[in-house]
Amino acid sequence: MGEFDLIARYFTRPARRSPLGVGDDCALLQPRPGMQLAVSTDLLLEGRHFLSTVDPARLGHKALAVNLSDLAACGAEPLAFTLAIALPRVDEAWLAAFAAGLMALADAHACELVGGDTTRGPLAIDITAFGEVPAGGALLRSGARTGDDLWVSGTLGDARLALEAFRGTVSLPQEVFDAARARLEMPQPRIALGLALRGVATSAIDISDGLLADLGHVLRKSGVGATVEAAPACALLAAARGGWAAERERIEDLVFAGGDDYELAFTAPPAARDAVQAAAAQSGTPVARIGLIESQPGLRVVGADGRPLARRFAGFDHFGA
Amino acid sequence: MGEFDLIARYFTRPARRSPLGVGDDCALLQPRPGMQLAVSTDLLLEGRHFLSTVDPARLGHKALAVNLSDLAACGAEPLAFTLAIALPRVDEAWLAAFAAGLMALADAHACELVGGDTTRGPLAIDITAFGEVPAGGALLRSGARTGDDLWVSGTLGDARLALEAFRGTVSLPQEVFDAARARLEMPQPRIALGLALRGVATSAIDISDGLLADLGHVLRKSGVGATVEAAPACALLAAARGGWAAERERIEDLVFAGGDDYELAFTAPPAARDAVQAAAAQSGTPVARIGLIESQPGLRVVGADGRPLARRFAGFDHFGA
Repeated sequence: MGEFDLIARYFTRPARRSPLGVGDDCALLQPRPGMQLAVSTDLLLEGRHFLSTVDPARLGHKALAVNLSDLAACGAEPLAFTLAIALPRVDEAWLAAFAAGLMALADAHACELVGGDTTRGPLAIDITAFGEVPAGGALLRSGARTGDDLWVSGTLGDARLALEAFRGTVSLPQEVFDAARARLEMPQPRIALGLALRGVATSAIDISDGLLADLGHVLRKSGVGATVEAAPACALLAAARGGWAAERERIEDLVFAGGDDYELAFTAPPAARDAVQAAAAQSGTPVARIGLIESQPGLRVVGADGRPLARRFAGFDHFGA
Repeated sequence: MGEFDLIARYFTRPARRSPLGVGDDCALLQPRPGMQLAVSTDLLLEGRHFLSTVDPARLGHKALAVNLSDLAACGAEPLAFTLAIALPRVDEAWLAAFAAGLMALADAHACELVGGDTTRGPLAIDITAFGEVPAGGALLRSGARTGDDLWVSGTLGDARLALEAFRGTVSLPQEVFDAARARLEMPQPRIALGLALRGVATSAIDISDGLLADLGHVLRKSGVGATVEAAPACALLAAARGGWAAERERIEDLVFAGGDDYELAFTAPPAARDAVQAAAAQSGTPVARIGLIESQPGLRVVGADGRPLARRFAGFDHFGA
């Protein structure tokens, strides 16, 4: 089966929202009047961003999810995406599962595949996703202001917990491992929360490299500092028992620097607390206020005992490094 | 040097035409009123799309050129691009040369780098390029009509001649090899011709997989057939002497099925011949009329002796296969 047959069989669908989809030299996109196009691209490589044993349906999901997470962090509404994929061989069962996982997430967000490129080679996936955002209304990393609250959605560290279990550094009960693995392999982009935070949040970023690393980008871009006063929850640690669950520092590493969380960290003025909670309720996404934006540069972390943590967190070294 | 330092050093420039460039979760693009955004993506892998010995500046050029060629085939004006790149190691000299070659072509077409992704891994480059085209005015593969002339720009087969020299199947004088190698490694996207053909051509495609293979896409999309009556020139064969230059069938394979030409094949009604020549003159691009679109399905080729060629051309098996 040749390249063009592959494309036709698994990756061609009629374009509904876009003027032109798969099958020409270019796809055509047309944002609605007054809207800008938000663009994100992520390159995923086997052995670096995912394990060779990953379920192909979950890989299809994640390859799009990491891009939709970037759109969410901008407050953009998904519109379309392109898929460039290198495949070591033509494995129809693999392709069918990959396409099913990919398209299920795409359909859930009305995000249509409009073009791409297929070639032979070591498994590599590059998706470029497009979303619409009102002109001037995108949530940027540069908007955090002194006095803003710092918020985070959902829970952190769960994906990294699964990775550590894969690596054999922690042993988890089966149901805890399964839940953590789902966080690692099937991240749910916080699109609804991003949309609800338009006009409410002053800045936002999605957490892919770990809370502290990504928060650092916001602080640098905004020219401010921050104190993180409360560690966001790692939902699964309570259930993990034994192993890491007893070791505070390793838990903190998971939560603050684990990575692959695909939650949103965002800032908003204290006057907007009700609006933030309303956005959370409207989008069905739990949020927690975890700190404060300050004029003093740098990032300070206060531990669960209320005292500043002076130590360095384990460096970011997950697949994405 | 970490990922973010790399990006900052070689791939960050202030966005001029786009609302937001490198450095946030997403880039922001805003086509002018009445314009659609044309999108093309190409994934290039070492050993498949380029040789490991390629000059990095030429690789930077080509990685963008193949995408700009797709924009040209749609009649789109380059606007911006994203770059996703996997690098096996941090080699500053390599990166500096790659970026220089990439940015020189980008600057020549006022096409700005607005975002991307950098990771460690086997050398792989995925560029997604964006161009503007008037709504409804894109040149498509589907527009060829019975009675249209078939045109091609420039010369074909030169890039494949270089590849065959690399493979050792042909021996070329040094100056011929250098010229052929420049066609292979530094293709010049026919942007100006594509723009000049808006409203003139009925269909267009860029020739990356070989004239006959790419023409086949146009015929299928348009529901027509064609006869190719005159082989487009391979500029370098006359100079090559000996070797392949004496073998008609191998020359025809180069010209009809060589690939990597990045010329435009397009159709236009006979009444538009003067307009096509004017577009060629305006864009400084030579064009040649090489055939006719017919209602009879299929693709017929007439040889230099005026008789139909019944044989199969060497299958497309260059790097892009």
